[in-house]
Amino acid sequence: MGGETMKGLVSINGEIVGAHKAHISVFDRGFLFGDSVYEVTHTYGRRIFLWKERWERMQHSARCIGISLPWDEGRFLAETLRVLKALDVEDAYIRWVVTRGEGEIGLDPSLGGRGNVVIFVRPFEGNPSWWYGKGVSLLISGVQRNAVDALDPNIKSGNYLNNMMAFKEALEKGFFDAIMLNAQGAVTEGTTFNVWVVQGETILTPPPESGLLLGIIRQKLGALIREGEAFELREQSLRPEDIFKARECFITSSSKELVPVTAVDGHKIGDGRPGPVYQKLHTQFQKWRDRRLKEDDLAY
Amino acid sequence: MGGETMKGLVSINGEIVGAHKAHISVFDRGFLFGDSVYEVTHTYGRRIFLWKERWERMQHSARCIGISLPWDEGRFLAETLRVLKALDVEDAYIRWVVTRGEGEIGLDPSLGGRGNVVIFVRPFEGNPSWWYGKGVSLLISGVQRNAVDALDPNIKSGNYLNNMMAFKEALEKGFFDAIMLNAQGAVTEGTTFNVWVVQGETILTPPPESGLLLGIIRQKLGALIREGEAFELREQSLRPEDIFKARECFITSSSKELVPVTAVDGHKIGDGRPGPVYQKLHTQFQKWRDRRLKEDDLAY
Repeated sequence: MGGETMKGLVSINGEIVGAHKAHISVFDRGFLFGDSVYEVTHTYGRRIFLWKERWERMQHSARCIGISLPWDEGRFLAETLRVLKALDVEDAYIRWVVTRGEGEIGLDPSLGGRGNVVIFVRPFEGNPSWWYGKGVSLLISGVQRNAVDALDPNIKSGNYLNNMMAFKEALEKGFFDAIMLNAQGAVTEGTTFNVWVVQGETILTPPPESGLLLGIIRQKLGALIREGEAFELREQSLRPEDIFKARECFITSSSKELVPVTAVDGHKIGDGRPGPVYQKLHTQFQKWRDRRLKEDDLAY
Repeated sequence: MGGETMKGLVSINGEIVGAHKAHISVFDRGFLFGDSVYEVTHTYGRRIFLWKERWERMQHSARCIGISLPWDEGRFLAETLRVLKALDVEDAYIRWVVTRGEGEIGLDPSLGGRGNVVIFVRPFEGNPSWWYGKGVSLLISGVQRNAVDALDPNIKSGNYLNNMMAFKEALEKGFFDAIMLNAQGAVTEGTTFNVWVVQGETILTPPPESGLLLGIIRQKLGALIREGEAFELREQSLRPEDIFKARECFITSSSKELVPVTAVDGHKIGDGRPGPVYQKLHTQFQKWRDRRLKEDDLAY
């Protein structure tokens, strides 16, 4: 595998090229140190999902590590729409990467000069339907999540080895993906998703203090649950055992939406099948998503 | 600053180009995730310093994160000598980077295919003499060092934001560089160097359990101290206060050799000038280095 599989188009500092021709200096600090920030989203029916929220979070990540974004929102959005038009598909995957730029090798951030902006787009074919119908199995990873005081998980940066190593461990052990714990043994998040459990009539998800990315889908689903009034939502520190004995477990991310988890570390969750709370919330979420796309998201 | 300052030559998978023409795919996992390993060394008088040790550690780093090095030692060394001959200077800086390769974007490490090998060389003009004559001031950084269970500091990887943020903090506060602590508040290492203090007739440096890169210069200097018998050497957990009240403090790295530290967090160390233990050890180290270069290191 690998090496010859890249699809789609890439805009590098405003120049659009095919994926195979998209190159950057090896002196770029993103390449040397992972000194970059990123965001990912999708389009559905030629509309960008959650642009505003993504743009705000990219600004937040950049501010946290002191990268100054070389473009304002208008230019970012215009270039994103331009490359999407060039790709010309209904549903697309989008990844924005902004690095601290290129220059002589050294830790000093001022060596980077002006940041490089890379926008990846490719067709998005959707996820395998078995994820949603059958559910997935997760590992409790032995790889601890980066501590907030070391490298805050709320910064979406080019330093992704921590999560990658947990994902690699999960694959090698035959799991779909992995949940990561903090130094105190509490659940933080998955490698690329937030974690939720159902306990009685209450839905629980780890609080910010556990050390996790406060996902945009996490926030949107939280608001939906609170508005719905069918379930109570509580942010609460969770141990792996709280997941093992939960009625249901599911995960959320921009790419995955809601995916039911039917086993964790070999423990069957509930009756081992996607549960009614998950089903109900996923339906609710998709309705909200479609409304949101129509109401205020951006078309190309 | 930045953007137009790159000097030297780069070999990318065996092709030598000028620094300004050295590019890599934006799908390279080094660029996307910092999914790479690296080593740095220097040449002195056309001889590569500590090749064997560097090569062994690059293998170690790669093994830890499961990157398989695409070249064996012979090919790595041959290409390094070839690019050094092309650069044609007496003293050079060398940086080897090996990534997990390029492919479709995703955490799955198998997407990377075959790794990319990048060798940077540029003239090395030596360090400013005031570092050695006057000494430097360090900050105790508020940025915690990555935990061993999250991302082991003994892996030299492309995930360098943790150290970079500590260095950035030091610069912004007017310090030369920074020392990083672990979650328990013990000294680990500097952003790119190991830390040593002199207490009475004993030289102390943090043990592996504190969570640090076991630097090659740390190991070589340790052996010299033990052979010299003038001082006792002890690996011991250190708090910032142990440094503040030390007789002397100095740091070691491949790029810096030994540099005296005359102030930490605003506390004067000893009498605020480079001390006799530092002076003696640096002289000893340089003698050993010159011997080592002549005896068994590689010429181009």
